[in-house]
Amino acid sequence: MAKTLGLHILADLYGVNPDLIDRVEDVKHLLETTVKIANLTKISSHYYQFQPHGATGVILLAESHISIHTWPEHGLATVDVYTCGDPSKAYKAMDYIISTLEPVRVDKQVHERGLLGDHEGSHLQNVLLKV
Amino acid sequence: MAKTLGLHILADLYGVNPDLIDRVEDVKHLLETTVKIANLTKISSHYYQFQPHGATGVILLAESHISIHTWPEHGLATVDVYTCGDPSKAYKAMDYIISTLEPVRVDKQVHERGLLGDHEGSHLQNVLLKV
Repeated sequence: MAKTLGLHILADLYGVNPDLIDRVEDVKHLLETTVKIANLTKISSHYYQFQPHGATGVILLAESHISIHTWPEHGLATVDVYTCGDPSKAYKAMDYIISTLEPVRVDKQVHERGLLGDHEGSHLQNVLLKV
Repeated sequence: MAKTLGLHILADLYGVNPDLIDRVEDVKHLLETTVKIANLTKISSHYYQFQPHGATGVILLAESHISIHTWPEHGLATVDVYTCGDPSKAYKAMDYIISTLEPVRVDKQVHERGLLGDHEGSHLQNVLLKV
């Protein structure tokens, strides 16, 4: 029986209100709140304000990482939530980010990463989800 | 015609020599060298040593990010290279990491992220690649 070490959710959020993703302060507030709500364990967090638009944020977790890159000029945010352990935390984190940014459209994929004990077949599992 | 903002390569590396991925110093040297070889633009980099085994490393790039999480006890490293702009840089970076860690097996996927100008159809494109 294969065991999965981690769950990685990738989501591209389209049609986001640019005011929600332009400033690094807002991106920081979003990610820091996400970690608390999903009961994840922060190691450190890092942010960068691009000029004239957009921001990057990454939180290193004991469980892996969360990242966001934003293009307010396109109403776009690309988000990664990659956690080990309880997979429900990854879904909870991503659901919070999406519900906060209220995109018009989300393209989302879920990967199981690091399968052990079954070295035959595909280890980087892929489930296509669309919202 | 749709335009893609970024290319995200996910790779799970199995059968890696644990000595190459156990210490954060080695992970740091790997990622810092990768950024130079791929001619990417580092904003900042962040590392963490887990006990008793394993490390995490993330580099924030002007082009997005690179991350690695390692489980030397399983000979496993999971790597993400996500870059905007010239897609050849993402491939160059991932190729360097794989050639340095010499895994027995790689499960790799490539996603185009942030497609603009064609809001119909799938925006989070998926191409399954196996090495």
